[in-house]
Amino acid sequence: MSASRSPSVVLAPDSFKGSLDAPAVCAAVARGLARVWPGADLRACPMADGGEGTLDAILSQGGTRRTRVVAGAAGAPRTAAYGLLDAPEGRTAVIEVAQVVGITDAQGMAAPVGDRSTRGVGELVRLLLRDGVHRFMIGVGGSSTNDGGAGMLAALGLSLRAADGSEIAPTPRGLAGLARVDAGRLDPRLAECTITVMSDVNNPLCGERGATAIFGPQKGVRADDLAAFDATLGRWAVLAEEATGRRAAASPGAGAAGGLGFALLLLGAELRSGAEVVAALIGLDAALAGADWAITGEGLTDAQTLLHKAPYVVAEHARAAGVPITLLSGAVNAAALPELGRLFAGCFALPPGPMALTECIANADALLADRAEQIARVWVAARGRA
Amino acid sequence: MSASRSPSVVLAPDSFKGSLDAPAVCAAVARGLARVWPGADLRACPMADGGEGTLDAILSQGGTRRTRVVAGAAGAPRTAAYGLLDAPEGRTAVIEVAQVVGITDAQGMAAPVGDRSTRGVGELVRLLLRDGVHRFMIGVGGSSTNDGGAGMLAALGLSLRAADGSEIAPTPRGLAGLARVDAGRLDPRLAECTITVMSDVNNPLCGERGATAIFGPQKGVRADDLAAFDATLGRWAVLAEEATGRRAAASPGAGAAGGLGFALLLLGAELRSGAEVVAALIGLDAALAGADWAITGEGLTDAQTLLHKAPYVVAEHARAAGVPITLLSGAVNAAALPELGRLFAGCFALPPGPMALTECIANADALLADRAEQIARVWVAARGRA
Repeated sequence: MSASRSPSVVLAPDSFKGSLDAPAVCAAVARGLARVWPGADLRACPMADGGEGTLDAILSQGGTRRTRVVAGAAGAPRTAAYGLLDAPEGRTAVIEVAQVVGITDAQGMAAPVGDRSTRGVGELVRLLLRDGVHRFMIGVGGSSTNDGGAGMLAALGLSLRAADGSEIAPTPRGLAGLARVDAGRLDPRLAECTITVMSDVNNPLCGERGATAIFGPQKGVRADDLAAFDATLGRWAVLAEEATGRRAAASPGAGAAGGLGFALLLLGAELRSGAEVVAALIGLDAALAGADWAITGEGLTDAQTLLHKAPYVVAEHARAAGVPITLLSGAVNAAALPELGRLFAGCFALPPGPMALTECIANADALLADRAEQIARVWVAARGRA
Repeated sequence: MSASRSPSVVLAPDSFKGSLDAPAVCAAVARGLARVWPGADLRACPMADGGEGTLDAILSQGGTRRTRVVAGAAGAPRTAAYGLLDAPEGRTAVIEVAQVVGITDAQGMAAPVGDRSTRGVGELVRLLLRDGVHRFMIGVGGSSTNDGGAGMLAALGLSLRAADGSEIAPTPRGLAGLARVDAGRLDPRLAECTITVMSDVNNPLCGERGATAIFGPQKGVRADDLAAFDATLGRWAVLAEEATGRRAAASPGAGAAGGLGFALLLLGAELRSGAEVVAALIGLDAALAGADWAITGEGLTDAQTLLHKAPYVVAEHARAAGVPITLLSGAVNAAALPELGRLFAGCFALPPGPMALTECIANADALLADRAEQIARVWVAARGRA
C-alpha cells in the first residue's frame, strides 16, 4: 500500500474529562498520525464547550492570559485565570466559571453544597468592569455551585436580606431565609455590557428538568434535599425577577451552572452554544478549509453528544466544509452508533481489548496515539486502492 | 463523502476462541460492512490454524463431512466428525484432533490429565485405513491430552508393556510403568500413507520448551507434576524411537497436542503450518485475487500471532496479492502494535469503551459488526477524498 501524499488533518477534540485536556488530546493524536505520516499537515484546534478547558482552548489561538484573586466556591481566596481578547467589537474578557467555582476544585468541594456560592464570579466581573471591560464571554460549565447565581449578583451589588433586614449569605443555605431583594445598588456599568453565556445546557432554573434536579446530585445535593434546594431557587427567582424587572427562570440555560445561567440572563446575557462560540473564536472553519480529514472526540460519546456538545458542533462544521470527520473518544456508547453514523466517518474508542475504566484513564495518552495511528493506517490503505 | 463503488472485501478471520467460530466472525463482519456497502462483494474465507474449527473451515469450501464413534480423551465413546476431500492426489481424510480429544470437551476434561489418551485418534485413523484412505491431514491443535501420542499408536497396533509383561494403559499414568515397546504389530498400511500434520506449534516433545512445560498447565498438569510428566514422555520417546527405528522427539512440532505430534512424526508425517494448509485448501489466494481489502482477526492478537498464526498467514498472502489487510480481533496487545503495523493496515479490537472480558465475549457478535462498520466508514471517507 502506498502512502501517497500526506493528508491535512484538523484535530478538534474536546478534553477527555478526567484524563487529558484538549491540547493533550491533540498532541497524542498528532503523535499517532505522525507515525504514519511523518510530514502530515496537522492543524490542532483544541475544542471546549463552555466548561473546563474553554479558556485554554480560546487562548490557544490568541489573546492574553491573566489572573485575579477572588473568592472560591467555599469563600476562601482563589487565583482564577481569565482571558482578554482584542476582538473587532472591543476588548473582551473570557471567563471560565470552572476557574472560580470549579467542580474539580477540592477546596470548594470540601464545603457542603449548601454553603457554596458564585460570589467569586461576581467579584471577577466587577474587577474587570473597573478595568473598563464591557464585553464578557462566560463559560459556565463545570461549576460546583447551586446558588442560582445569587452570589455573583450579590458581589455586583444586589442586596439580599432576611425578613429582619439582616444581610443573608448568597448560598443555598442563606437563600432559604431570603425575604427581600433590592437591585438599586446593582453595578450600573452592567447595563452597558454585552454578556455572552457559553453553555451546552438548555435546562430551566427549576422543576424536574431544572438545575437542582439534573445537576444537583453530581454537586453533592442529597436526594432528600433536592426538593428543598429547588424550592429555594424558585423563591429566589421570584424575588430576583421582581427586583430586576426581568424574567429568566423559565428560559433555556437558566439552569446552567446551578442557576448562574439564570442570574446572567437577568443581566441581559445572550445564551450561546459554548462549542459554537469556541469554534468561532479559534477559527475552526478556517482550519477546516481545504483539509482532507478531521478528527474529534471527548471522554465519553453517547446520545448526549448530539445535543450540541463539542464533537457534534465540530462535525457540523466539518460537514459544511465537506471534510469527513472521524470520532475518537475514550468510550462510545454502542446504542448511539446508528445516530453517530450520520455525523462521523467512523467512531472509535480507546481500549485495545477488555480494559477497566481506571486503566483506560491511566493510559489514555498512549492508547489515543495508538488508536489514531491505526485509523490512519486504514486511511492510507483505502487511498492506496483508490 | 461519497461511497463510490463498493469494494470487494475478503473476510478471512480465525475463530474468536470462547465466543465466535470463524464462520460466525465472517457473518458479523459482513453484517457491519453491509450497513455501509449494501451491495459489497464480500468473500467469506473462514480460517483456522490446525486447531478447533479447522475441519469446518476446510469443509466450508468443499468436501464431505462424516462422523465416526471413537474413544474420547477419557475413554468414553464420542462421535467425532472428520472430512473427506477428493484431492488431486487422491482421497484425503481431514481429521481435527480437537473433535476427538478436544480441550473444550467437558467429559474428557473431567478425567485427570494423567488418565487421558489419544487412543480415539488412532481408532479413527484405523477405521479410515480400513476404508482405503491413504492420505491424512491431521489438525492437532486444541487437544486435552499429554500422552505423547501413545494412545494413538497403541490403537494402531503398537504394543506397550510393563516390566511384568502386562499391557499398560496408553496414558501418562500408564506410561509411568512402561518398560517395553514393540512395533511389530503396527498397522502395515501406515507405511503406504501420506500424513500431514497441521499445527502452529514448533516445540519439541520434552524439556523446558516441550509439550508438558508449555501446554501442560492449561490441560491440568499441576506445577508439582510437570517434571514427572515430562520425564515419562522422555522415557516413552526413547522406547518408541527404538521400537520404530525413527527419531522425532527433538523435531519441531513433536510437542504439539501433548506429544501427539511426536507419534505422528514417528509414522513419517510431514509437519506443516496449519494456517498455510487451510489457506491452500480453502483457496485463499483465489479469493484475494483482485480484491480491494481484506479483514482478518482472532480472539487475542499479540506477539504470538507473528509465529504463523492464522492472521499472520492471511496477512502474508494478502501482501503477496497486493491487498491491504486490516486486523479486527477481540483484543490487541498494545506492545505488539509496532510489529503488527508492518503487517496490518490498522489493528482494532472489540470494546467500544472500558469493558470487562466477560461482557466482550457475551456481546462479541454485535460488537464485531459495529467495529467492522466503523472501519468501513473510514475507508469510505478516505476513498471519497482520493
